[in-house]
Formats: sequence, C-alpha cells, structure tokens
Amino acid sequence: MVSPTKFSERETGKMMTMALADFKLKKSYFVSVEHDSDLIQFITELAEKENITNAAFWGIGALKRATLGAYDQVRHNYVEIAIETPHEIACCTGNISLKDGKPFVHAHAVLSDEKGNVKAGHLFKGIVFAAEVLVQEFDVPRLERKFDELTGLSLWDGGINGN
Amino acid sequence: MVSPTKFSERETGKMMTMALADFKLKKSYFVSVEHDSDLIQFITELAEKENITNAAFWGIGALKRATLGAYDQVRHNYVEIAIETPHEIACCTGNISLKDGKPFVHAHAVLSDEKGNVKAGHLFKGIVFAAEVLVQEFDVPRLERKFDELTGLSLWDGGINGN
Amino acid sequence: MVSPTKFSERETGKMMTMALADFKLKKSYFVSVEHDSDLIQFITELAEKENITNAAFWGIGALKRATLGAYDQVRHNYVEIAIETPHEIACCTGNISLKDGKPFVHAHAVLSDEKGNVKAGHLFKGIVFAAEVLVQEFDVPRLERKFDELTGLSLWDGGINGN
Repeated sequence: MVSPTKFSERETGKMMTMALADFKLKKSYFVSVEHDSDLIQFITELAEKENITNAAFWGIGALKRATLGAYDQVRHNYVEIAIETPHEIACCTGNISLKDGKPFVHAHAVLSDEKGNVKAGHLFKGIVFAAEVLVQEFDVPRLERKFDELTGLSLWDGGINGN
Repeated sequence: MVSPTKFSERETGKMMTMALADFKLKKSYFVSVEHDSDLIQFITELAEKENITNAAFWGIGALKRATLGAYDQVRHNYVEIAIETPHEIACCTGNISLKDGKPFVHAHAVLSDEKGNVKAGHLFKGIVFAAEVLVQEFDVPRLERKFDELTGLSLWDGGINGN
Repeated sequence: MVSPTKFSERETGKMMTMALADFKLKKSYFVSVEHDSDLIQFITELAEKENITNAAFWGIGALKRATLGAYDQVRHNYVEIAIETPHEIACCTGNISLKDGKPFVHAHAVLSDEKGNVKAGHLFKGIVFAAEVLVQEFDVPRLERKFDELTGLSLWDGGINGN
C-alpha cells in the first residue's frame, strides 16, 4: 500500500480539489457486456461483485438507446439528452471510486449514428447491443467522493481548500 | 497465469456473452505510426510481429482519410461512412484479441475536421498522417472471439448462454 | 530498464517514424484537476513536479471554455477553434513525453454542449470546471520528440528513415 502524495505545497487562492496518489495496477478485466443490460448498472454490479473500489475503464461497442447528460455549470444540475435510436459507442471513458462508501461509476461517452453523426456527454444510461470494456483496477488507498460546494458535484477528496 | 473468473452465478433469461478475467499488464508499447500506413493494418502487423494476442490501445493524431462504419442492429451488417478529407483523430480506442486463432484488431474512432466538426464510428481504415498509439498488452488466458447469433458479431467468448 | 525494440527489419520506401519499446507501468495517478486551471498547464506542472517524462492520460469532466486545434496537413500549421461556452469533456486522451528535454503534454479532446452536440480536436487549452484524470506513468528509456520534416510536427524519435 502506497501512501498518497499530495500537492500540499501548491499555492493557490482558489478552491482546489486534488487527489493524487501513486497507484499500482492491481487487476484488469476484459468484459463483454451483457446484451440488453444498462452499461452503467452492469459496471456498478461488476464493481460490487468483484469488490472494485478504484478503477478506470474504457469501452467500445454499440447501444440500442441511451440517456446522456450535460451539467449546467451555473444552475448546478444535469440536463438530460435522450438518445432513442441505435448508436455506436465511439468512445466511453469512465472511473470507479467510492461515494457514500459504495462503488460509484462515472462515465462519459461519445455516440455515433449510421451517418457517423455524433452526440456526447455524461452517460447516465446506455442499453447495450454489444460492448467490450477494459476495467483496470488499482491497489490504492481509499479514493472517495465528497460534495464540493463550488461545483455542486461530488469530487475526489484528498483536497486542499485554498480559500 | 490467472484463471478467468466468470459470472456463472449471474441469473438471466437473456443470451449473455461475458468474458471476465484477472489480467496482469505485461508490456506497453508507445508507437509512432508510420506516415501513409493504414492504422488498423499497422496495429495488426505490430500484433503479429510482437506476438500480441491480448491488448487494449488508444491513439491520437491525424488521418489523411478514413473509412468509418456503423453497425445496423437489425440487418446485422455494417454501413460504411467514407471520410475523404484530413481529420484529427480526436480519440481512438481499440483492443486486440484472437479471432480464428489470429490477432484481430477492433477499434472505434472520433474524427474531427478543421472546424472541429465530428464524425465517428467503427474504424475500418485510417490512412495516417501522424499518430501516437499506446498499446497495453496483458498476460492472459486466451481471449477469443466467437460468432454470436443474437448480434451477428464476433464477441469474446467465455460466455454463459442464459437461454 | 528495458531496452527498446525497434522495427529495424521493417521495409518501407517511405519516411517512417517509429518508436517502440517494452514499457512497464511505473505509477498511476488519479487527479482531480483544480477548478479554473488550464488542463494542459495543470498536467504539465504535474509532470514537472512529479518528474514524469513518459505517460499516457485520460480525462473526463467539464470545461468552462477551451481552445481546440486542427492541423493543416498541407500548410503545416494549426487552425484554432475557440470554444467559448461550457462543454463536457466527453473524452480527453493524451500523452507526456520529452521535447527539448522537458515534459511535453499532447492531448486531444471531444467536447459536448448542453444538447450533446460536439466539437473536437487537438486540445490547446481547457479551463476546468471539474475534471478527473488518470495518468499512467511508464518506466522507460527516454522517449523524445524530434522535428519531423515530412509532417512539420515533433514526433517520437527512435525512427527509421526509409528514404
């Protein structure tokens, strides 16, 4: 177990959230996601089952439909974008960390239609046609999300509040 | 060599393809892809030459032209999308696994033009202007693709047929 | 330290830049990027502070504004694309290597607005609302960028000039 290194020496007049640690790769999983499952729920269940508390993941494949989101940086709420037709997962990038003591999946995705046209954003839900996901798990100290006043989001803690 | 863990306890009434294994990172390659080569063919040749049977990769750079694809989830065939002009590789995510006993490259890409406008999808072919690719190879049991009736695609085996 | 493997046996009549080495993963960093900082500058400072000379990174999150770029493959200069409004980082992929002996950050990004519409390209600058970045550092021989006549870009050396 490696202890986290922090930017404690970093000077800033602004609110700063920063988690930094020397993480070693623990395990990697290649996952062919179940047809008709929700990608986010599937990764969450994988994390729960395999006791993964810290990981990054990447996926490609195709979805039957999805719900994307965009965060309103002023109002501090998500706007939802419904994707009602089949789309390729041109790219999906995400991570798993702890929120309220449980594995929490955060993912963004770029989706493309039959003409190659694209919609993208935060991935709330994606009903899988077929998807291949690599999950890389790290051997880490606990990386937890905590509510961040400035953004209204739950961000990784280990932070230094420069205010 | 780690034996694969499977979701054998998972209950489902649907066809389920799932390959899950604890893979250790073996080698990583930083590759500056040859000018004028086809990115897919180049990675395939790299896999053959270096005997890579299981890997994930990521690339950025620029293409002179490309052929993207979108899978028709009803008709079970790919629609091709020709990209005839130079585009940035805003993102390319892929994997290498075995198909019919040989290394098979599967990649998706997001391409952008001089105005930042985007086309994306399955990457069939991409003629490289310049490209930087990280390939991460894993020390794994054989991960093989097999034909999946439900999707018409060759997916990773290790599956559980819930029907 | 592993010595680099090169495609010296590869035959080609074209200019070829290729760097290939067996890199072992050294450290990984999960970073919650400082609000209001420039993502590129932040990663550069992280590399300088932590003495990272070779790494790949991936990020998701949101930007307040950004400057994207597209490389003109004929004129050999970048065209800039100003993104003046808040966008999600649907995907950001990058690497850190040496240029003129110092850590140099190269990143591409896919950005999406409140309707899920997308702009993408080379990421020159991105003012962070919130961003979660995984940096994977490799234990490598020096991977350096050198000016490449053919493309007008600084590419990884280790190259073989087939001309």
